[in-house]
Amino acid sequence: MRNYIKDAADLDEVELSGWAEDIRRIKSIVFIILRDVTGRIQVTVKSENVKNFDEVYKINRESVLKVHGTVDHQSRSKSGIEIIADSVEILNAAEAPLPLGVVDKVQADLDTRLNNRYIDLRKDENLIIFKAQSTLLWGIREYLNRLGFIEVHTPKIVAAATEGGADLFPVKYFERDAYLNQSPQLYKEILMAAGFEKVFEVGPAFRAEKENTLRHLNEFTSIDIEMSFADHNDVMDVLENTVKNAINTLKNNLGDELNKHGFNIDSINGRIPRITYREAIDYLNSSGFQMNFGDDFSPEAARVLGERYKSFYFITEWPVSLRPFYTMKKDDETTKSFDLQLRELEICSGAQRIHRYDDLVNNIKNKGLNPESFTFYLSAFRYGMPPHAGWAIGLERLTMNLLGIKNVRETTLFPRDRTRLLP
Amino acid sequence: MRNYIKDAADLDEVELSGWAEDIRRIKSIVFIILRDVTGRIQVTVKSENVKNFDEVYKINRESVLKVHGTVDHQSRSKSGIEIIADSVEILNAAEAPLPLGVVDKVQADLDTRLNNRYIDLRKDENLIIFKAQSTLLWGIREYLNRLGFIEVHTPKIVAAATEGGADLFPVKYFERDAYLNQSPQLYKEILMAAGFEKVFEVGPAFRAEKENTLRHLNEFTSIDIEMSFADHNDVMDVLENTVKNAINTLKNNLGDELNKHGFNIDSINGRIPRITYREAIDYLNSSGFQMNFGDDFSPEAARVLGERYKSFYFITEWPVSLRPFYTMKKDDETTKSFDLQLRELEICSGAQRIHRYDDLVNNIKNKGLNPESFTFYLSAFRYGMPPHAGWAIGLERLTMNLLGIKNVRETTLFPRDRTRLLP
Repeated sequence: MRNYIKDAADLDEVELSGWAEDIRRIKSIVFIILRDVTGRIQVTVKSENVKNFDEVYKINRESVLKVHGTVDHQSRSKSGIEIIADSVEILNAAEAPLPLGVVDKVQADLDTRLNNRYIDLRKDENLIIFKAQSTLLWGIREYLNRLGFIEVHTPKIVAAATEGGADLFPVKYFERDAYLNQSPQLYKEILMAAGFEKVFEVGPAFRAEKENTLRHLNEFTSIDIEMSFADHNDVMDVLENTVKNAINTLKNNLGDELNKHGFNIDSINGRIPRITYREAIDYLNSSGFQMNFGDDFSPEAARVLGERYKSFYFITEWPVSLRPFYTMKKDDETTKSFDLQLRELEICSGAQRIHRYDDLVNNIKNKGLNPESFTFYLSAFRYGMPPHAGWAIGLERLTMNLLGIKNVRETTLFPRDRTRLLP
Repeated sequence: MRNYIKDAADLDEVELSGWAEDIRRIKSIVFIILRDVTGRIQVTVKSENVKNFDEVYKINRESVLKVHGTVDHQSRSKSGIEIIADSVEILNAAEAPLPLGVVDKVQADLDTRLNNRYIDLRKDENLIIFKAQSTLLWGIREYLNRLGFIEVHTPKIVAAATEGGADLFPVKYFERDAYLNQSPQLYKEILMAAGFEKVFEVGPAFRAEKENTLRHLNEFTSIDIEMSFADHNDVMDVLENTVKNAINTLKNNLGDELNKHGFNIDSINGRIPRITYREAIDYLNSSGFQMNFGDDFSPEAARVLGERYKSFYFITEWPVSLRPFYTMKKDDETTKSFDLQLRELEICSGAQRIHRYDDLVNNIKNKGLNPESFTFYLSAFRYGMPPHAGWAIGLERLTMNLLGIKNVRETTLFPRDRTRLLP
């Protein structure tokens, strides 16, 4: 039975499987650094011990091997242990040269890395990002599950735009024209009319935005919740505790590994501060900015707010003009909405939603959209739609912001952007 | 603070929110059956107790209410308790008549139900299906997480077909032609080359199949795993334990509720039997069928096998001709593949995959496909691809089969089929 490399120190005899990350040849000995998902270990292959020594001698880096041997606990190798092989099976030989190095100190450019993602991801510092992403998501799910949220899956091929007519990818659905959904927003609201009360969804969302920035993806993973008989304050509480649980889960499971790679994750101590949009622009104007009500925050303004509020903070009560048609108004100018920020970065956006049919129809018209395109959605508001609120987090951006990574492509396994459709 | 209806029996004073499922009016009293996600309770509204009595008197069924009142534990209502309201707030009035009844004994046809899904799902017998689906998925995830599987998200907009050229939905990706992914198969294999070793993904898969049967969806939720240094037997073991954990989680959390609605879930006692494809056709031929090696099982044949093997069983070693190009051969005729069956129904399909580049290129050619369309995938096999195996479950079909439901549209919130794109 296979042993993992991390367990070798506790064993005397092992069967390991992994990649030959580094190979040194000295006459009748081959030293191999073998790597699996749990770590690295030196394997010493001597001609007198191993039948197919000549074959092993010639393998290229990154070939896949199965090694049986004894553990030398008094080894002079760096880790203090090594494996003295008595058999080496070449499971799959690698060609040479590699299109991208695994152990090279020189960093390749991002395009080369993404083109050869299957090698790029073999590096510890990249693998850890996706272990962290999976662990964060587990922490999020575990908390929402504990609160009784039902996990749902809503369609990605849709007949109408969620956020209006722009930025849609068209799909040919048999004889009909359809689109890829920009967000599960309309469907999770319909599920509030269906009496599900608390739902969440984790799934792809598609935006045909032409921006090709460090923060834009055209396909991303959206984590969405919606909750009935709740307002924006209630779902901010849920969000706060969800993010706390995600961070704690991450630190408990991967804290040491993350530290080793220089990732320092912010903790949330006590309550996350909640400031209004008006307070934010007042502070900025007192710091030399010239912002009017209705202006969005420039990157410079966001940076100044980030310095003022350090770690996590909410910006609440955004202007009507900056929020989508389904957002509940607080008064004529502001909405019951919020963004969760981490320093200068937006982590999550949410709000209480409009639950009355007439208000919603008016708002759709006011945003220049046609209510008739939304009949399937609007009808759910006519026969018993409860008050409700919710939020959405982009998983890749959350990972990027928590780990302090600058480019969202680094936190996406196979990114889709303005120019990239492969791999 | 809001109380749930299920907790009212333990309280003397409550604040409830929910839907007015049924309303009876007797002079100066209105009896309301209030429903929330946890249950139903009778609310008695007397004109002398409630200020806006005249307004409450006139509400339509399915209006959304917030009720404050005292709990009468000596009530003569069916449940033995009722709420004597001292305030009733109409949160959102419903129009009348409803496009679909919630308490009507008469069953509407499926099209009407799906067109008005937001009301259809208010029925307990429909809500329970999606609670069960969410719980099953939790049980699956919880087990895979325990085994150290990394949850991943791979792109749904892709440049090449996973299973060959047919049954693709075309997408316009900016200037380029792209497709909706039929399966994460190629990407999860690339992640094996990336050294992730154990991954799973839960996400939408898209098949432009023209069949409009009880078992076909054009968009469904695929649960996929892939595992390195594993063969088909290893991943059958993982599958067996995953399904066991899912079923146990379901029974522990929702067993009583499912029984109440007449859903009886199969248990898995001991090991799931594993029979080969050859054994299956031998048995069928001895039972009067005339099957040749290479024939797939007709619905009639599947039914006879289902009667023979009762609950769960594996059919292994399928003919090469019946499996996709990436399937590992056992010999010239058969593959290291399996289906998990529940009676006459397929639950899951899996196999060991080909890990050698040359074999894979040959197989792609043999299936009449062009290796050049698969360069992004094939290159991952040239520089250290470990042996690997995996499987895929359709979540909606799993739910359908476990609950004994006949139409997969019943286990899909908003189904997409040959003719349905709304809601």
